[in-house]
Amino acid sequence: MDIKSYLSRKKDIVDKALDKLVPPATMFPTSVHEAMRYSLFAGGKRVRPILAIAAAEALGAKTTDLLPLSGALELIHTYSLIHDDLPAMDDDDLRRGRPTCHKVYGEAIAVLAGDGLLTMAFEVLSDPRRAKAIPANRLIAIIKEISTASGVFGMVGGQVVDMEAEGKDIDFPTLEYIHTHKTGALIRASVRIGAIYAKAGKRRFTALTHYGELVGLAFQIADDILDITGKQEEIGKDVGSDLKKGKKTFPSFYGLEESRRRAVEVADKAILSLKDFDRKADPLRELAKYIVNRVN
Amino acid sequence: MDIKSYLSRKKDIVDKALDKLVPPATMFPTSVHEAMRYSLFAGGKRVRPILAIAAAEALGAKTTDLLPLSGALELIHTYSLIHDDLPAMDDDDLRRGRPTCHKVYGEAIAVLAGDGLLTMAFEVLSDPRRAKAIPANRLIAIIKEISTASGVFGMVGGQVVDMEAEGKDIDFPTLEYIHTHKTGALIRASVRIGAIYAKAGKRRFTALTHYGELVGLAFQIADDILDITGKQEEIGKDVGSDLKKGKKTFPSFYGLEESRRRAVEVADKAILSLKDFDRKADPLRELAKYIVNRVN
Repeated sequence: MDIKSYLSRKKDIVDKALDKLVPPATMFPTSVHEAMRYSLFAGGKRVRPILAIAAAEALGAKTTDLLPLSGALELIHTYSLIHDDLPAMDDDDLRRGRPTCHKVYGEAIAVLAGDGLLTMAFEVLSDPRRAKAIPANRLIAIIKEISTASGVFGMVGGQVVDMEAEGKDIDFPTLEYIHTHKTGALIRASVRIGAIYAKAGKRRFTALTHYGELVGLAFQIADDILDITGKQEEIGKDVGSDLKKGKKTFPSFYGLEESRRRAVEVADKAILSLKDFDRKADPLRELAKYIVNRVN
Repeated sequence: MDIKSYLSRKKDIVDKALDKLVPPATMFPTSVHEAMRYSLFAGGKRVRPILAIAAAEALGAKTTDLLPLSGALELIHTYSLIHDDLPAMDDDDLRRGRPTCHKVYGEAIAVLAGDGLLTMAFEVLSDPRRAKAIPANRLIAIIKEISTASGVFGMVGGQVVDMEAEGKDIDFPTLEYIHTHKTGALIRASVRIGAIYAKAGKRRFTALTHYGELVGLAFQIADDILDITGKQEEIGKDVGSDLKKGKKTFPSFYGLEESRRRAVEVADKAILSLKDFDRKADPLRELAKYIVNRVN
């Protein structure tokens, strides 16, 4: 299968779904709706929604009704980028090659656009239209999965530690904490909500959870490597920005070569965790390969 | 009935429930958990959870299982105060007589503590323990109610307009928009989640919705009046802070006396909307009176 064309096809479908989920930019008060859309449609690759969809497909489920649920993941991911970029946080001027949300709309609207996107994720998940497509108890399980991965036990906790680690000589377990919480938790949750949606049995749910954890780690190692070796056009932000901020990364502990080797190893393990799945899981397998191919 | 002792009794019960809902301040990473607790236990009156409880009681329901659900309202209310106080927003140094969250923990942790509290509201609402006490479809309806009232169609939208109105010569409909969205929406939702929890029929649900809208308005008019006439010890912030920020309020359109008259009129209407309820709705009636008695 051609993973690039798979990703681009799915991205189009997710983008269309997202466009329906958020209010038009012309809705009063326009500033916040413009800002939400500015960041939501800034060229994101939609990795999280696509992982949810690919996980559900691996289990043989139709994914039409999963689309809005998977969109909630992207709303939350986008909110986290807006808040992380704030001057009080990572103070970034560029994101995906464009000025960050607060640079365009000001800090106050950026805070509120983030708050609005985070809250909208739960508006979307609890919309009566969802309840028609999926039993309420499974919907509750999906809300629990996404909220836990996003809050202090997940993404928010990871961002706190990441921020407090800046310029400090942290140890490897602390870097691991940051990786598994800041980005890992929501990636794991993405795969798992696809599995909950598709009524995965216990064994397959566990397998997909492992896949989600490993692919999240591979993703993060690759991201750390690209921050050093990538071209600005590719990564959409300044090359070496982690280093400049005094942020420890995977390569600062293991060097570039060993980091590359580990990324491949982790991706291979992710693929291995899907050994009991048939060819319907090929997109998940190819995704794991694709992530590490970007850095090799 | 003695509304003051009712409020203080319920506040104790809500405080104990809240203490169980949020992680201990000693949990890693401690900064964000300390900050969340600092703002959550800063002496809030717990108006929103108490309104939810009183609405359920008015319908004859036992409220033990409503406590954590009503706690989610307070988590969201607290997050909104933390973000509103940020330098980029209202830039307030004092809240309830104490330094604001960002003054104590810094801006970054304040943003993240707000994000953490907002997300935790949905973690609490989707916790498997909830699902044991209330059918999943009603829980979904409660999540929809709370998220819609908090997001861009409610609180976030109201805060955007409030902020953009600062120093501007806004008209009365704009002030009404701010009132009904920034504070009104979540107060209305508080009463309504009590009603959903207690399985209100259509007629009573509508009556309680009206009550919630009117009591929210009375609350806001009273708040505007207290900003002018209150003592700093009572209101926990600088007297005249709206005026200083160039914020239009109810009294700036109608003067103090007429504002007081309207507050009483609105509270009377709120009480009238409960005419088909028996004495179990007395706490709701007394609450409406209590709100306007503070300014007369």
